[in-house]
Amino acid sequence: MLRLLGVDPGLRHTGWGIIAVDGNRLMHVADGVISTDGADSVPDRLRALHDALAALIAAHAPHEAAVEETYVNRNGTATLKLGYARGVALLAPALAGIPVAEYAAKSVKLSVVGTGGAEKAQVAMMVRRLLPGATIRRADAADALAVAICHAHHRATARRWVPSRL
Amino acid sequence: MLRLLGVDPGLRHTGWGIIAVDGNRLMHVADGVISTDGADSVPDRLRALHDALAALIAAHAPHEAAVEETYVNRNGTATLKLGYARGVALLAPALAGIPVAEYAAKSVKLSVVGTGGAEKAQVAMMVRRLLPGATIRRADAADALAVAICHAHHRATARRWVPSRL
Repeated sequence: MLRLLGVDPGLRHTGWGIIAVDGNRLMHVADGVISTDGADSVPDRLRALHDALAALIAAHAPHEAAVEETYVNRNGTATLKLGYARGVALLAPALAGIPVAEYAAKSVKLSVVGTGGAEKAQVAMMVRRLLPGATIRRADAADALAVAICHAHHRATARRWVPSRL
Repeated sequence: MLRLLGVDPGLRHTGWGIIAVDGNRLMHVADGVISTDGADSVPDRLRALHDALAALIAAHAPHEAAVEETYVNRNGTATLKLGYARGVALLAPALAGIPVAEYAAKSVKLSVVGTGGAEKAQVAMMVRRLLPGATIRRADAADALAVAICHAHHRATARRWVPSRL
């Protein structure tokens, strides 16, 4: 049984979700949202995000991770901040020796809903349908579970980042 | 005697430099450039950058760190990649419990050369003049030392990121 971690990174809110894959069966394991305090400094917020990701990786021991590609904004400063969060989201599993895959938002929607232009609410609804029995309260967590589901579908063929120093 | 770490982050090349400050005397301690292999995956490159920064922080035990604000490019993808590297550069000292300050490139130039519009070569020349006796081979390392010098000048008044959980 393979456990997959999905992450939808953001400096303010980072959604995460873990699913278990058994053949073509998917099961919900856990999900949540890591929020950082906007009143804190950026290094402190990045440390809080890193520590929370490292703790949940240690607790759930996922075998592989998948991170959603951040939306590139027209606003350079906003894009840079997304970059910080995404850098930390890519680093945390790499430090734990876990392969990390990356998926564009469009691929995630296509994989979960069947169309790349799906609405956020549609993604959440399909995630709940694909992982029955799970209570998924937060939209950011549903997005992260969608990334994990996308990875479950694509992992055999995806371009995966296997750490070289395992 | 206070040791200050300056960092000029980039995914490909991250310059770093450590100076010692004794009243208004500045001394060169060490400098270098951390390069990551473009053929490696992004998570692997971020891990290499993180590991190298963590190792040099452990070896030199700087009291404070200063990071140059990354140039925000018109190209969103390039800005995002700079964001990854800068996120890791802000995270590494924060994880070690070291206060991190941030300076715009313009402030660094103003502090070292006396004009915010100084050329790169001028910055390197002034860094060599302010830190006599040091052999500074790489331009990225000279830039990082300039950030450390800027921090030495401003640290009393700068907006510093003091980790809250020390």
